[in-house]
Amino acid sequence: MIDIDQANATAVERMMSARPILRKVAPAREVIPGLRDRQLLHAGPPITWERASGPLRGAIIGACIFEGWAAGAAEAEALITSGQIELAPCHHYGAVGPMAGVTSPSMQVYVVENVTHGNLAFSNLNEGYGKVLRYGAYSEEVLAKLRWMNDVMGPILAAALDHSGEGIDIRALLSESLHMGDEGHNRNKAGSILYTARLAPLIVQVVDDKQTAAEVLKFLGDNALSVLNPVMAACKAMADAGHGVEGSTIMTTMARNGTDLGIRVSGLGDRWFTGPAQVPDGLYFPGFTSSDANPDIGDSTITETAGIGAFAMASAPAIVTFISGTPQDAMNATREMYEITVAEHKQFTIPALGFRGTPTGVDIRKVVELGITPRINTGIAHREAGIGQVGAGLVRPPMSVFEEALVAFAEKYLD
Amino acid sequence: MIDIDQANATAVERMMSARPILRKVAPAREVIPGLRDRQLLHAGPPITWERASGPLRGAIIGACIFEGWAAGAAEAEALITSGQIELAPCHHYGAVGPMAGVTSPSMQVYVVENVTHGNLAFSNLNEGYGKVLRYGAYSEEVLAKLRWMNDVMGPILAAALDHSGEGIDIRALLSESLHMGDEGHNRNKAGSILYTARLAPLIVQVVDDKQTAAEVLKFLGDNALSVLNPVMAACKAMADAGHGVEGSTIMTTMARNGTDLGIRVSGLGDRWFTGPAQVPDGLYFPGFTSSDANPDIGDSTITETAGIGAFAMASAPAIVTFISGTPQDAMNATREMYEITVAEHKQFTIPALGFRGTPTGVDIRKVVELGITPRINTGIAHREAGIGQVGAGLVRPPMSVFEEALVAFAEKYLD
Repeated sequence: MIDIDQANATAVERMMSARPILRKVAPAREVIPGLRDRQLLHAGPPITWERASGPLRGAIIGACIFEGWAAGAAEAEALITSGQIELAPCHHYGAVGPMAGVTSPSMQVYVVENVTHGNLAFSNLNEGYGKVLRYGAYSEEVLAKLRWMNDVMGPILAAALDHSGEGIDIRALLSESLHMGDEGHNRNKAGSILYTARLAPLIVQVVDDKQTAAEVLKFLGDNALSVLNPVMAACKAMADAGHGVEGSTIMTTMARNGTDLGIRVSGLGDRWFTGPAQVPDGLYFPGFTSSDANPDIGDSTITETAGIGAFAMASAPAIVTFISGTPQDAMNATREMYEITVAEHKQFTIPALGFRGTPTGVDIRKVVELGITPRINTGIAHREAGIGQVGAGLVRPPMSVFEEALVAFAEKYLD
Repeated sequence: MIDIDQANATAVERMMSARPILRKVAPAREVIPGLRDRQLLHAGPPITWERASGPLRGAIIGACIFEGWAAGAAEAEALITSGQIELAPCHHYGAVGPMAGVTSPSMQVYVVENVTHGNLAFSNLNEGYGKVLRYGAYSEEVLAKLRWMNDVMGPILAAALDHSGEGIDIRALLSESLHMGDEGHNRNKAGSILYTARLAPLIVQVVDDKQTAAEVLKFLGDNALSVLNPVMAACKAMADAGHGVEGSTIMTTMARNGTDLGIRVSGLGDRWFTGPAQVPDGLYFPGFTSSDANPDIGDSTITETAGIGAFAMASAPAIVTFISGTPQDAMNATREMYEITVAEHKQFTIPALGFRGTPTGVDIRKVVELGITPRINTGIAHREAGIGQVGAGLVRPPMSVFEEALVAFAEKYLD
C-alpha cells in the first residue's frame, strides 16, 4: 500500500529545499542536452503546426527567420509543414519560456542549477514590452532586438556571471522580492531591479565600451520582466526536484501552448494530461477586447507550480491595477490556494498574511475533491500572429486535466 | 476672521503638488546658501554642546576631524567649547540629515529642487550600516569611508546626474517604492535599488575606471538606505512648500537632536516648539537593551511630516521584522494617522488599503483635540558616542509641543 501523503511530503520538501542558482548564459545548442539542429522548443504540451494558435505560429516563423533557415514567413511555413523543422516542448528539455516560449538553437539561454539536487533548468532571455517574439511578432524590428539581445546583451550577461564566480541565488532574490510587492509571475518589478542592481557592478567590470554597458543596464533596469525568465528557470529547477516521486499526486508541471493546457504529476512520469486552454479574464489595453484574446499560452505557470505567481498574490496587492480586481481579491486568491496545496513554503513568505509561507505543491486529489483549480496570473496575447500583448488577467486550467490525471493515478497505483 | 481649514487645504495642496527632482551633488559650502566656514549643521532644533547627547557629540567631533579642524577628539572638543565652531540646525539652511545629521562645509550633499514652487533642499550622502558618523562614530574607519564617499562616490554621483540632464524625480520614485513594500523612512529597500538601477546606466558612462564604477554601484546597491537621504531632501522640499501659509495649523517640520524634539507650524513662521525627545520602543540588536538607547534623534521625521514613513506603514508590512509588531499593527498605524491629518496624498497611495492616499498634513488642532501624536519609525542610536545603531523601533513626539504650538497659534491669530 503506497502512502500518498508521505510521497507528497517528500515531493514538496524536495521542491522547497531546491536552491536554484543562476550560473551562466550560453547559446541553447551548447548547453541544453539533446537539443538538435533544426529543432524549435515551444511552451506547453506537445503540439503540431496545424493545431498551433496564431501567436505560437508567429513565434515559430520568427525563430526560423532568426536562425537564417528561412528568408520570410512563407518560406518558414513551407519548411515547417514539410517536416523539416521539429517542434518539441521546452519542458522535454528542462527548459521553460514565457508565452510562445519559442527557443531556437542559437538563442542565448539562462542556465540555472539546483545546487541541492544537481538538476539544471533553462530559459531564454526576456525581450521586454511592445512587439516581441514571445507574443508572436516577427517583424524586422522584433528580430533586430533579438539579435542585439543575442549578440550583445547575452555575452555580457555570460561574462558578468562568470566574473561573479558564484552566480545569483534566484530563490533568495525571490524571497526578497515577495516582500517587495512582487508575486513572481506577472509582477516582477522588484525582482527585476534587484537583479539589475546585482548585475550592475559585474557588468561594468566586463564591458569595455561604456555606451554598450549603459544600454544593457538600461534595458535590464527598464524592463520589469527582466528577471521573469531566470525566475521561471529557477521554478522549473525547483519543480523538477519534486518530480518522479513514486506515489505522489503533486502537480510538477503546468503549461500552455495557446491551444492546450497540460499538467504532469510527480508520480506519473512524463505523461501529459491535456485539455483546452481557456481565455483569461482581465484588463485589456485600449482598443482591444476579449474577442481579440488568444487562449492561455506559456510555460510561465511554472511559477504557480512552484508556489508563487497567483499563489503568492497576497504579496502583490498593486498587481490588481493591471490584471483587474481589488487588493482583497488578491488576498483571497492566495487563501484559496491553501485549500489545494500540501505545504506552506519555507523560503517564500507573505508579510501581509503574518509571514505565512506561500501555498506550495498542488495535490491533484484536492483539486478534484474540492472542485478548486489552480489560479494563474497571465499576460494575454492577441490571437493573431504579430500583434502582441493585448492585456493581462486571470485564468484557470480546465478541471478535466486533473480528473484524467487522477484516473491515471488510480490505474497505476490503486489496482 | 481667518479660515484655518482653507489655510490648511492650501498648505497641504502645496506639499502634495511639490515635485522634487534630484538635480545634483556638490560640496555643502558651494550650494547651501548662507553656510559659513567653521559651521556644522546638525539634526533637530537648536542645541548647545553642553546639552547635546552622546551620538550628536560624537558626530560633531568626527566632523571636526574630517574637516581637518582638529587632529582628535580632545582638540575638537576644545574648539567647540571655546566657541570656535558654530552649531546650527540643518533645517535653518534648507537641509536635513538622518540621525545626528551632522553636515560640514566640505561634505558632498544632494541638491533637490521642487520644480513646482522653485525651493531647494539638501541632504548629505548615506553611509550605509555599521560604524557611521550619523550614529556618532568617528574612528579612522568611519572617517576613511566618509573620505571615499566624498572624494570618489560624490563626484561620480554629481557627474552621473549632470550626464542625465533631467535629474531623478524622487516623488515618482517614492510613488513606485510605496507599492513595493517601502514606507520611505525606515524601509527604503525598493527605493534604494530603484535609485541604483536608475543611476547605473549613467554611472557607467561617466567613470573611466571599471573597478571604481563597480565599487560605487555595489555600495549603492548593497545599502538599503542609499535613497533615504535624497528622499529626506525631497520630503523637506515638499514640506517647505507648505510652510508659511498664513493661518495654517499644519505641521511643516518635526525633527530631533537626540535631546529635544521640535516642531514648526506652517502659520507660525520659523519658531520651534520643543520638548524632550523620547526613547523609542523597538527591537534591539543582540547584546543591547533599551538602557543603551539614546533618546530619539534625526531629521528623518521629515518623511512623516510629508505623509510617508510611519504614516505609510500599511505599505510596508515586512518592516515589522526590524521595528517590532505585526503586519496588522502596521495597517493600524496608517489608519490612526488619518485621524490627525487633513488630506490623503495624491501621489503616494497604499495598495493594501485599496490605493487610498497616505495620510498627509498633520493638523496640530487634531493632535491636541484627539490626544493622538504622530507616529515615527526610527533607528535607535546608542547613547554613547562611537557605538552606533543598537536597534530600530517606534516612537512619538511629546504632546506638549503640540499644545504649546496651539497656544502660540491662538495668541497670534485668535485675539
